[in-house]
Amino acid sequence: MTSPTYPLNVDQPYPRNQWWVAAYSAEVERDLLARDILGERVLLYRTEGGEAVALSGICPHRAFPLEKGRLVGDHVQCGYHGFTYGADGGCVLVPSQSGVPQKSSLRCYPVVERGDLVWIWTGRADLADPALLPDLGAVGLGRPDWACEQHPVCEVAARYTLLIENLLDLSHVTFIHATTIPGGEKVAQIPVAVIETDHSLTVQRKGENLPLNPLLKMQFPEQDGPVHQHFDAEYLGPAMIRTGGAVHDAASGQLLGINNFLHMITPAGPTSLRYFVITTRSFGLENPALGQINLGMGTRIQPEDSAAIEAIEQVFQSGVTLPMEISARVDNGALKVRRRLEAQIRSEQSA
Amino acid sequence: MTSPTYPLNVDQPYPRNQWWVAAYSAEVERDLLARDILGERVLLYRTEGGEAVALSGICPHRAFPLEKGRLVGDHVQCGYHGFTYGADGGCVLVPSQSGVPQKSSLRCYPVVERGDLVWIWTGRADLADPALLPDLGAVGLGRPDWACEQHPVCEVAARYTLLIENLLDLSHVTFIHATTIPGGEKVAQIPVAVIETDHSLTVQRKGENLPLNPLLKMQFPEQDGPVHQHFDAEYLGPAMIRTGGAVHDAASGQLLGINNFLHMITPAGPTSLRYFVITTRSFGLENPALGQINLGMGTRIQPEDSAAIEAIEQVFQSGVTLPMEISARVDNGALKVRRRLEAQIRSEQSA
Amino acid sequence: MTSPTYPLNVDQPYPRNQWWVAAYSAEVERDLLARDILGERVLLYRTEGGEAVALSGICPHRAFPLEKGRLVGDHVQCGYHGFTYGADGGCVLVPSQSGVPQKSSLRCYPVVERGDLVWIWTGRADLADPALLPDLGAVGLGRPDWACEQHPVCEVAARYTLLIENLLDLSHVTFIHATTIPGGEKVAQIPVAVIETDHSLTVQRKGENLPLNPLLKMQFPEQDGPVHQHFDAEYLGPAMIRTGGAVHDAASGQLLGINNFLHMITPAGPTSLRYFVITTRSFGLENPALGQINLGMGTRIQPEDSAAIEAIEQVFQSGVTLPMEISARVDNGALKVRRRLEAQIRSEQSA
Repeated sequence: MTSPTYPLNVDQPYPRNQWWVAAYSAEVERDLLARDILGERVLLYRTEGGEAVALSGICPHRAFPLEKGRLVGDHVQCGYHGFTYGADGGCVLVPSQSGVPQKSSLRCYPVVERGDLVWIWTGRADLADPALLPDLGAVGLGRPDWACEQHPVCEVAARYTLLIENLLDLSHVTFIHATTIPGGEKVAQIPVAVIETDHSLTVQRKGENLPLNPLLKMQFPEQDGPVHQHFDAEYLGPAMIRTGGAVHDAASGQLLGINNFLHMITPAGPTSLRYFVITTRSFGLENPALGQINLGMGTRIQPEDSAAIEAIEQVFQSGVTLPMEISARVDNGALKVRRRLEAQIRSEQSA
Repeated sequence: MTSPTYPLNVDQPYPRNQWWVAAYSAEVERDLLARDILGERVLLYRTEGGEAVALSGICPHRAFPLEKGRLVGDHVQCGYHGFTYGADGGCVLVPSQSGVPQKSSLRCYPVVERGDLVWIWTGRADLADPALLPDLGAVGLGRPDWACEQHPVCEVAARYTLLIENLLDLSHVTFIHATTIPGGEKVAQIPVAVIETDHSLTVQRKGENLPLNPLLKMQFPEQDGPVHQHFDAEYLGPAMIRTGGAVHDAASGQLLGINNFLHMITPAGPTSLRYFVITTRSFGLENPALGQINLGMGTRIQPEDSAAIEAIEQVFQSGVTLPMEISARVDNGALKVRRRLEAQIRSEQSA
Repeated sequence: MTSPTYPLNVDQPYPRNQWWVAAYSAEVERDLLARDILGERVLLYRTEGGEAVALSGICPHRAFPLEKGRLVGDHVQCGYHGFTYGADGGCVLVPSQSGVPQKSSLRCYPVVERGDLVWIWTGRADLADPALLPDLGAVGLGRPDWACEQHPVCEVAARYTLLIENLLDLSHVTFIHATTIPGGEKVAQIPVAVIETDHSLTVQRKGENLPLNPLLKMQFPEQDGPVHQHFDAEYLGPAMIRTGGAVHDAASGQLLGINNFLHMITPAGPTSLRYFVITTRSFGLENPALGQINLGMGTRIQPEDSAAIEAIEQVFQSGVTLPMEISARVDNGALKVRRRLEAQIRSEQSA
């Protein structure tokens, strides 16, 4: 049988002292929204003052799911017996009595809102430091000089690590996305470099002297000759991976622009995840058609990747005998990321 | 993970030396009816002489479900190889041979029919004493001087204890049934008394000096002034709970009448139950509209309760992390019932 | 709880050093066909030269199901990262690199094609001897002097042993197939003989002096008087059971002809199987209507048997308490087959 934490060789499937994307900012409104995150039921809403709130979504009284209750001002009222909690999780009312029971508060998750994303910290609250977020500005988020598009969030019935591995081995582009990513048919053959820093690991592919395909021509209408194009996969921690990258004029080496796909991955449970995609772009801000193209590519690419990793998860769940895993040299970066993730998870357990 | 027997702290989910409702009398006819009861497949039918019979529903020959066979007179013929059993469970025929194998009888469950209900005893047959049934006459069943209505039986995908707890904490009425139970919006705030006897435990709420709402006006057309109204929850063992109760004239203290909801709860398996409801009424026998009102309330209230406890069961099944349980003072009665049920289950195991 | 290997008293549910039918020959074409066999995902296709091939269906690189890839000549290309394997299972290409990783081949199953059936060997390849196949000619397969019809393959949600037991106790014919098998209403009462050889075990029923029913009259139009008709169940190993058999003129004892139902049973996983049926006939080759009759009987009989054993499997899966199993004298043959199967499985484990 497949280990429940495959491909990681650890006891726990996810690191918890970590910021994860719970929702796009626009999804968190004056209604109760429940999402499973790392196997916990999280309740999201926005206070009258506009603050995003993340509380435990299960009433500690009799385990009723709180999203079936309602907001009363900034308070959450359970739909079963009316236990009521404030935005800090504290119990403020038990209708059948005066006063509230001891230890009756909901867990309150640290939240920060950055880049139009609601990030929650799933580990020890005293360690929740916004400085541990990925450098969002560096990838084009929250910057007036870049354009960006939010793609529809989707739920994928696969363990989150399968999506990380999918994105870190872009040789799949040639097979899964051959018809949906212009230029993708050659990606598998581009040589790979792995670049490591403390906060990221990039599997870098630089397509050299590529002829201008129709997409590049539309993105860079001034360009005539061939280009160098990056097909990077940059791991910025388990919650965010950047793909795509810079395009340069091949003749002069001059930067034409950067087009990123940002992939935000949030484990829902051991074999399910929520997938947020944002495209960011340093050029063509005056041309909304480029955003439409990015959104259109997302609507084709994401279902292809989701279907691929769901097919693998179904193999795991089916109980069929699995062969011994083999890896290619191109998997070097993905294997290093496995080691990083394992080290992150183990360090929490020993702490 | 939630314990499979939560909220009970025992190894077995149900007491077996216990009468449970298997069916309404009218459901048991000259057809084979199979019901799972306490994790056992029970076959119900009526003999030509009119006796209700409850046998094991699995053929001991090759485990074929007997409800797919047929009745031959009072005998049950298996649909696979024709093994045939009498109404006492004894094997009477194996078509391929003369004589029958040893030990080839079906388990035969003790049955009594009372109050238009078919009760079966799921434990040791020598302990099956009809005197252990709840006092049905006291709650208005089988009495010519009371009216009663059978509500449709429903299957609920939740452990039976969640329905017991639901009924014993009627402060939920204010939130789950605010629009379906007249006067229910105030229930959570009525003070509670817990009355214990050997055979019952009542969580008693007495609404004092309540104004006549339209339902009360229809039930007691002679009444003008305010009333005292009981919102009792009387535990008569795990198989039956009575809610509702007496209405008195507030001025004189005179009894106007009693309107009970009787809830018969039968575990199907560890996380499923069958739910029978009968309303009984000591007044207005000449007015069939009152029965229609009780039936109408049932069609709205039961789905609300079923949905609530199924939502909790889904939380348990989902594997999400649960908070530590807290209880309010109003839960005192329900917690005492947990202790009673645990004691009943443990006494069987030590016996 | 039912043992996962019930009714066998062993640790493993199936013997592996065994030929099983993977597909009808006509099902294996120039497309990739995946079938789960004994809990393994097997990929079937035919080379350009016409050879049937059976390889492991899971890519050892990242566990992608290979049936979602494609055939390139005789090679299988994974649909995820393009790893490519030859018809012997050897890895021939990893697109992102020159050379292939060590130990990167797919398991290749021994295959033989006989009687328009693709047989695969699921155990140790060095033991795969075509001489271990059942004697197909003896039952009318692959013979120009017999007619045969392939019935549609069906998937049954039950452990394979339930189908073996179904076929070996034809007393069920009287109850399950009373209206679909002419003469079947009497089968349960015909005495049984069990005939054992090294390679087969036959539960033999010989109907004596049976009047000519309409089916027999159509099969043997020259015949006037009563017949002796065999209702055999011949176990030729777990992969094949023959039912039906010879019809003789009762007066002279002369053989009129043989009509067999061949049942090929292939476990898909622990609680599922694939069921292939072929009818063979030594007479009436000039009359295609007889083939249509056999096919028509199959379309009625097989769903009846599938439904019966699926009902039993559902009982097992439901978790309801099972009674102690009892057996009749007529089960003697089926019980001996259990012992044979257990011995076959145990001999592999001790080897």
